[in-house]
Amino acid sequence: MAAFLVSSDPGFESSFRTLLGAKREDAPDVDAAVAEIIADVRDRGDAALVELTNRFDRVGIAASDLRVTEDEIDAEIAKVGAEDRAALDLAAGRIRAYHARQMPEDARWTDETGATLGWRWTPVAAAGLYVPGGLASYPSSVLMNAIPAKVAGVERLAVTVPMPDGMANPLVLLASRIAGVDEVYRVGGAQAIAALAWGTETIAPVDKITGPGNAYVAAAKRRVFGRVGIDMIAGPSEILVISDGGCDPDWVALDLLSQAEHDESAQSILITTDEAHGRAVAAAVERHLETLPRSAIAGASWRDFGAVIVVRDMDEAVALTDRIAPEHLEIFTDGAEALARRIRHAGAIFIGQWTVEAIGDYVGGPNHVLPTARSARFSSGLSVLDFLKRTTTARMTPEALAAIGPAAVRLAEAEGLGAHGLSVSARLDALNRQT
Amino acid sequence: MAAFLVSSDPGFESSFRTLLGAKREDAPDVDAAVAEIIADVRDRGDAALVELTNRFDRVGIAASDLRVTEDEIDAEIAKVGAEDRAALDLAAGRIRAYHARQMPEDARWTDETGATLGWRWTPVAAAGLYVPGGLASYPSSVLMNAIPAKVAGVERLAVTVPMPDGMANPLVLLASRIAGVDEVYRVGGAQAIAALAWGTETIAPVDKITGPGNAYVAAAKRRVFGRVGIDMIAGPSEILVISDGGCDPDWVALDLLSQAEHDESAQSILITTDEAHGRAVAAAVERHLETLPRSAIAGASWRDFGAVIVVRDMDEAVALTDRIAPEHLEIFTDGAEALARRIRHAGAIFIGQWTVEAIGDYVGGPNHVLPTARSARFSSGLSVLDFLKRTTTARMTPEALAAIGPAAVRLAEAEGLGAHGLSVSARLDALNRQT
Repeated sequence: MAAFLVSSDPGFESSFRTLLGAKREDAPDVDAAVAEIIADVRDRGDAALVELTNRFDRVGIAASDLRVTEDEIDAEIAKVGAEDRAALDLAAGRIRAYHARQMPEDARWTDETGATLGWRWTPVAAAGLYVPGGLASYPSSVLMNAIPAKVAGVERLAVTVPMPDGMANPLVLLASRIAGVDEVYRVGGAQAIAALAWGTETIAPVDKITGPGNAYVAAAKRRVFGRVGIDMIAGPSEILVISDGGCDPDWVALDLLSQAEHDESAQSILITTDEAHGRAVAAAVERHLETLPRSAIAGASWRDFGAVIVVRDMDEAVALTDRIAPEHLEIFTDGAEALARRIRHAGAIFIGQWTVEAIGDYVGGPNHVLPTARSARFSSGLSVLDFLKRTTTARMTPEALAAIGPAAVRLAEAEGLGAHGLSVSARLDALNRQT
Repeated sequence: MAAFLVSSDPGFESSFRTLLGAKREDAPDVDAAVAEIIADVRDRGDAALVELTNRFDRVGIAASDLRVTEDEIDAEIAKVGAEDRAALDLAAGRIRAYHARQMPEDARWTDETGATLGWRWTPVAAAGLYVPGGLASYPSSVLMNAIPAKVAGVERLAVTVPMPDGMANPLVLLASRIAGVDEVYRVGGAQAIAALAWGTETIAPVDKITGPGNAYVAAAKRRVFGRVGIDMIAGPSEILVISDGGCDPDWVALDLLSQAEHDESAQSILITTDEAHGRAVAAAVERHLETLPRSAIAGASWRDFGAVIVVRDMDEAVALTDRIAPEHLEIFTDGAEALARRIRHAGAIFIGQWTVEAIGDYVGGPNHVLPTARSARFSSGLSVLDFLKRTTTARMTPEALAAIGPAAVRLAEAEGLGAHGLSVSARLDALNRQT
């Protein structure tokens, strides 16, 4: 049974802090092993990649097998039924439409001195997308990472996905095809990240790597950061539901469980003004845990990290929500829109009882890669901006330089940077000679 | 003397690769020491912060001295002359005007299913700005970090700046005042980063930390990343000048030296179609090195990492520039605007011979915190976006859920996530019962 907190109880603040501070991840220290793997791939390229893949994925491939051919992809994709294909197509279309609206605009203007200033956005030239193998190999995750990259204009998008025991995931390959992925490689783990960052004979290096992965993949991404860009290192998933009791407790329970079933370290919290509703939701969770296929995982998550918090009013709900800064926030209350506007820190907000979070995981349109572990305080979900970069531009006229150059010379001198000052004053001198 | 490469020479590609791959930074491994400092500040708060500050900065402060009082700031600021003050004001105004244009817009629309989608930007609540002490304590850097934070709407902005031997930098304090910094603390090094990330009795924790620093500061930022957001870890500065020979070689030389004087590891490169111009610039560099105050630093940088590259034509210049992905790019050619548009990877572009890079360091308006070490391939300079985060929003109507819900159920089942599917199908069932 999850924690049941009541905000008017004397011990509430202490219990809430415990909940907020719960260390949900106990990442094994794999850094030394990862450093070795990266160095090996960097130094020996394909040879190392093949050896590591054959060892970890229990296969016997050669370098020429590293890339999954279009024929192989075709053969796997043919196994996907029409309904799954249609669902992926619908999801891809909606994700594409949402992310297309995120494309930022270039800017350019001339200011009062005559200087022309602005900026320009350009796509990352090549990106790599890591896709886990096995149970956590999700086609939805391929769409959520690959589509923003392609919308941004990334020319070359490479997917690495391990195929342990030679098993491919047809839906992952179909999602890659639908999203416009250019290359697919059957490699995983730290060795895949190393290959994407450093390049091998077969895999050309990329500029940016995104996508979820286990502790080895996360450690490898941290290590190659700087040489290439990376997305966030995502932690276990979270959901917070704010409910005033007007929604079916069963629906709330299923929403809480849909995060809990991801991972034993996931966290599901209900904040409600209605204690009876809170108890009904908790009871519904227990009931569903009896039949859910992933009840062992969901049950552990709910028991260890789940919570029902009864608050006096919605002001308190808002304040606690901002302290939690949840990855996913469902608001099932009267005036849900107005309440949503008051929240400052959340990855994604789902407004009203028809807006179930699982819609956002698949077909809503917004990205499902979102900040976890309170990082919504300072970071955002994945977007086209992650695959773009901005170049600032400036053009001075002689008049503009005459107007603002002397201040630059002054500051350069104050900072003791002589060449900075001279580079400006040499031009100012030339202007003075002309007049 | 710097390298002199000619693109038509047979060994060019190899020499260019050597230039591109030159390891310019030999960061000492301070990670263990930094881990200890962070743990100490986290565990003992102010007491550790005071001890470490007294030891490293050779002072004898108490916890009550950690914060620099407004009176102390007033007293230091009074030492700044009117001209320096006016230069800082001019710079701040221009930086503020440029960054105000970067504020992104919220979005909200209703799609063909009746679903309302969108996103909302909100500021980070509290940010910390690290300012180095000693020689690299630059007021311009305070403006470039603090103004975007305040434009973004950050409510609480704390500066940490070490004051070794008790010495304050009046210009840094004035820049903080002008930029609207809320709190200033006389602490530096990894202990300052630890205090900002974890908080102490005196320093409340922040959500995001930006600003340059030495190897200890950089290692500490890497360590606290995740708990708080950080900006990029900046490497040594770089400039690339593309010139067709129509500009005074002396100006080009000074621009190259204005990066070289930052740091012995800085890199200054000229690409030109005119070999004689290239030789004239190299000669002018040598001439200026005889008199520059920071000639020891600039000379070492130019000798070890500087280069003049003679190319056949501007196509070649563009291709090489994209491979270098320079932090700063000056384009001094006929048709400089058109050439600038062809460049894909650069932090900031300065167009035309009047647009000297040092203007951008101080008073141009665009940010001077820019991606180094080829990271302009995947990242951007500092902007208001670094102090904002985006929350996606979604609101389904029953009709919208009926339209797209079944695809979500399908995909949830394909991914083996039962509660995800049930959370959607429970609502779809309710809708079906209604009709």
